[in-house]
Amino acid sequence: MPTDQKQPAFVLVRPQMGENIGAAARAMWNFGLDRMRVVAPRDGWPNEKAVVMASGAGRLLDEAQVYTDVPEALADCTYVMATTARPRGLTKTVFSPERAMQVAREKLEAGERVAVLFGPERAGLENDEIARANAIISVPVNPVFASLNLAQCALLVGYEWMRQAGTHADETVTLGKTDWANGAEIAALGDHYEDALEQAGFFFPDHKAQSMKQNLRNLWSRMPLTQVDVRMLHGVLRQMVRWKDKDQ
Amino acid sequence: MPTDQKQPAFVLVRPQMGENIGAAARAMWNFGLDRMRVVAPRDGWPNEKAVVMASGAGRLLDEAQVYTDVPEALADCTYVMATTARPRGLTKTVFSPERAMQVAREKLEAGERVAVLFGPERAGLENDEIARANAIISVPVNPVFASLNLAQCALLVGYEWMRQAGTHADETVTLGKTDWANGAEIAALGDHYEDALEQAGFFFPDHKAQSMKQNLRNLWSRMPLTQVDVRMLHGVLRQMVRWKDKDQ
Repeated sequence: MPTDQKQPAFVLVRPQMGENIGAAARAMWNFGLDRMRVVAPRDGWPNEKAVVMASGAGRLLDEAQVYTDVPEALADCTYVMATTARPRGLTKTVFSPERAMQVAREKLEAGERVAVLFGPERAGLENDEIARANAIISVPVNPVFASLNLAQCALLVGYEWMRQAGTHADETVTLGKTDWANGAEIAALGDHYEDALEQAGFFFPDHKAQSMKQNLRNLWSRMPLTQVDVRMLHGVLRQMVRWKDKDQ
Repeated sequence: MPTDQKQPAFVLVRPQMGENIGAAARAMWNFGLDRMRVVAPRDGWPNEKAVVMASGAGRLLDEAQVYTDVPEALADCTYVMATTARPRGLTKTVFSPERAMQVAREKLEAGERVAVLFGPERAGLENDEIARANAIISVPVNPVFASLNLAQCALLVGYEWMRQAGTHADETVTLGKTDWANGAEIAALGDHYEDALEQAGFFFPDHKAQSMKQNLRNLWSRMPLTQVDVRMLHGVLRQMVRWKDKDQ
């Protein structure tokens, strides 16, 4: 059963290699997309090589809708975007993948049915197919080396679909079974080191002692230390003292 | 010769299949990245299968630096990010690919040397390798289906590298050998249609004529018409008149 989240259909137009259809299915499902349409697949349908390659995303192939031509595949769609490496003499809006998936989300939210066209492996979409689309999606690539394949193109558009959901954090910190040390714990750590190093004669010469102590305090505060880190740093120091005492 | 643009090194750690090394090279070069480092490749170096797969990006393999272990590969780097699907009990900052490449650009701009670690195909990076990194990069994927391979991971990080350059437009329009029609041209088109349709008896019944004319004017203005479009629409109407005259 397809997920019930509103989402664009990915329409593979005359795909050639089954492996690429399967890889496109995997790429889509990585980003929660599961509406695949296939137009005139070269090797017929179902395609065993596609199924093998899709592995965990095989459901997308089982549920894929197969059409004989592009107009039939787009019959129920109100907004269509065509992926193509280069504009081909047609006057057309060109979206980055990012902007394209923003637009797709807006249109879907407004009740529209959105499709994204992907051309066959070598030739890409034909001009009369691109002319049926409302806009073009073009991935910004190295002008001297543009070699995205079908599944990679689906991957990047799918990635932007997921990204535009805005549900993932740009920056987080995973905490490994511990919590951040608080100010008192950091201060106590500083005291411990300062006292022990004072006894050890570390703060020398005298006229530099003050700035050395300040640098050390600053080091502990600058580090994002956890409670586990603080305990370990206390332990390190205690062990060094113990070692010295044993040696005497 | 590598490009002279400041950029992160992509470090492939213990990659297994030559094909994946070649595909990673292609993924990188699509986005203008050409600093590859390889740590302990399973099948030695150079790797013929990698070369075949890399095709147009083979230069990256020729110029790749090969190391026996991760510390050696990172010796000159001041900031390291490790790609990994899941945090593994380490307290660590986790970046989205987007945020990671923002940080990479900032660090590189400030003169730092930045590396991105990619683990071997199945197992991924080991915890002691992740522990050497300053942060983790995690691609937001479908929680029930995360199956990005090595080259796809390199592709997405490379895509964000290119995207963060901010040199591509989110939305443009390609003009196919024409220019936008101006107000006078749109007005003249509206006049032509209104006059001809008036003669043809289109604006009927009378009490609706005004709003029909308004809707027609609005249609022309709503469309982003080019000069070529306008000429074609004039031609369409002239031809319909000619056809009628011939039939009489």
